[in-house]
Amino acid sequence: MVESQTPEIELVLGAPKSELATPALLLDLDKFESNLQKMASYTATHSMGLRPHAKSHKCAEIAKRQISAGALGICAATITEAEKLSAKGVTGILITSEMVGNDRIDRLARLTQRAPDTISVVDNPIHVQELAKAARRHDVVLNLMVDLDLGLRRTGVASVAEGMALAESVMKSRGLRLLGVNAYSSMSAHVTGWSERRTHSLNSMKKAVDLFLRMKNSGMPIEILSGSSTGTYNIDIEIPEMTELQAGSYVFMDVDYSIIGGERGPVYDDFQKALTVLATVVSKSHKGVATIDAGFKAFATDRPFGPDIKEGPAVKYHFGGDEHGILEILSPEGDSESAFVLGSKLEFVVPHCDPTVNLYDRILCTRDDKVEAVWTIERGYC
Amino acid sequence: MVESQTPEIELVLGAPKSELATPALLLDLDKFESNLQKMASYTATHSMGLRPHAKSHKCAEIAKRQISAGALGICAATITEAEKLSAKGVTGILITSEMVGNDRIDRLARLTQRAPDTISVVDNPIHVQELAKAARRHDVVLNLMVDLDLGLRRTGVASVAEGMALAESVMKSRGLRLLGVNAYSSMSAHVTGWSERRTHSLNSMKKAVDLFLRMKNSGMPIEILSGSSTGTYNIDIEIPEMTELQAGSYVFMDVDYSIIGGERGPVYDDFQKALTVLATVVSKSHKGVATIDAGFKAFATDRPFGPDIKEGPAVKYHFGGDEHGILEILSPEGDSESAFVLGSKLEFVVPHCDPTVNLYDRILCTRDDKVEAVWTIERGYC
Repeated sequence: MVESQTPEIELVLGAPKSELATPALLLDLDKFESNLQKMASYTATHSMGLRPHAKSHKCAEIAKRQISAGALGICAATITEAEKLSAKGVTGILITSEMVGNDRIDRLARLTQRAPDTISVVDNPIHVQELAKAARRHDVVLNLMVDLDLGLRRTGVASVAEGMALAESVMKSRGLRLLGVNAYSSMSAHVTGWSERRTHSLNSMKKAVDLFLRMKNSGMPIEILSGSSTGTYNIDIEIPEMTELQAGSYVFMDVDYSIIGGERGPVYDDFQKALTVLATVVSKSHKGVATIDAGFKAFATDRPFGPDIKEGPAVKYHFGGDEHGILEILSPEGDSESAFVLGSKLEFVVPHCDPTVNLYDRILCTRDDKVEAVWTIERGYC
Repeated sequence: MVESQTPEIELVLGAPKSELATPALLLDLDKFESNLQKMASYTATHSMGLRPHAKSHKCAEIAKRQISAGALGICAATITEAEKLSAKGVTGILITSEMVGNDRIDRLARLTQRAPDTISVVDNPIHVQELAKAARRHDVVLNLMVDLDLGLRRTGVASVAEGMALAESVMKSRGLRLLGVNAYSSMSAHVTGWSERRTHSLNSMKKAVDLFLRMKNSGMPIEILSGSSTGTYNIDIEIPEMTELQAGSYVFMDVDYSIIGGERGPVYDDFQKALTVLATVVSKSHKGVATIDAGFKAFATDRPFGPDIKEGPAVKYHFGGDEHGILEILSPEGDSESAFVLGSKLEFVVPHCDPTVNLYDRILCTRDDKVEAVWTIERGYC
């Protein structure tokens, strides 16, 4: 289970949560495995491919479990993620960001030499030319998808017409193989309310289906229409042309997804909250307030809300700088509760899983309150 | 200059910025050295001690340069920072967070065995007892400062009376040595307007001076009153009892500090903006918009503003997810500018330096546009 048995990791294995150094990133294995199985069964039942986004976890152990459970491979966001996960035996990697720049193009070509099923995306004719040059220089065939913008104006070609033109230029380029369309509707993923989200996503994806069908109908030998998120996995499944889902956060969950609303009510609870940060009460000098050792460097701050306490007394978390969080104690028992005694440990559901995981080098995997495994997070400077 | 010459680092040394993989954290050495010298000269001229906060940089190379330029040592925020910097030869470490919890207390005791000048802080009588037990268990003398809250209610004893009581309990405990008062007025550091900031800080620090003098007058052999920030370094210097400043961000600077106002005008420019993130234009599909490869995982998001472009065309940066930033092009030349051609590299001043540095494993130090050194950032999971 554990990938490198350093003495430090051996010390942690088997340790109860109460003895762990904090802040620590924890994964509840029972909940994680339930999430893994639920998405695998759902997509299998609906004959839909699954290529989960690994930018959420950057973890080879998780990627391999996703593939063992039936996933086609995984998505990566950076060349470093793709290289590091590939080096640990992860296959079927689709890099969903444009690999622009000499450094990235060369690394993509070398990765594809080692892992010929690697796929990446393009949205620009200059990039197509540079990729074609690299393919010839490295004597490798680069697999590409046309990346389509669905409204955010972040990446992707702006229009279906531009997508067709780009697809044609890929088709004509020696060393490049066109596989399909990448279309991630990031603006749909967090629309509040399931039916509102359904309308938003199905509308957004029409453009992607249009491009995919035009490419197919013009005789291009394409096979893949890839996109979707944890927020829309059971919505985009309705699109007959869609061949695979990129949902990633479902293995962990976070506050961000819990508040978007589910199919049956205001709380999105299709998947369990498996990821938490364990923190320690390090200061208790004021009535109604306790301070923990987890701030900007322990939780991502890109959302307008902080973490939620996992269980126990009611508190409101306030960021208190790089290393601290200030808990406003809302519980009627208040200061008398043992949870707030100096040294007490508390667990928090993270505001947004992807950038929070990126703050840690490892995940401590727990079952029955003890550490069962330690998994490496493949962080990287770029 | 470089601490470990791995083949990867050798490849980067001497490389021009235009060839670097992105996103990359860059330090302009000329500006950094100017900042280092300016603060060293200023504190020396005013006969004030300087113990810069290393939570900003977590970098032994920077800490050693600060000490060579006259600093008494450095401050650390976590036991991991203190251990890692000490292991690389950094001395005089004051850990400004309460080292609460069995793991941290034992690590503090072991660190103090190796580095007897290590200092930490207390704000709770239970903690004093536990530290005293650890001191005896490890047969070491632990150096302590009473940590005083100045209004944020994050850490520190609430009142001067509680501070006196705590100081007395430290004085009575075998194995503990009382050195002084730690009082950081975080609420003063970013008050906009120099004279408003001066009033705020001098008012806040009165409580610290009161505690310091009472401890001294009661015969305690204390020597240190430590606090202050980059925002108040030339304000707190007026306090005769103050013995040392903890300013840290001055080596780097960031958007956060640039907008608080300086002594002579609305821009705080006492120190130069030495730290930047280099990014690449990776998508250019829409008029008036360009996308770079630097988002939530490249810039800290704890402030209500994003990064500023360092120089070149006018843009407004918008976060575009984990790996992307979307530039709204404001420059009159607009899309025709070569700065926005696919693959172009742009540099950004970071919104907030401390948590941004924490996202990277190394700093690429540049001079005359080339990488002169690569310094390791001692990140750690806790």
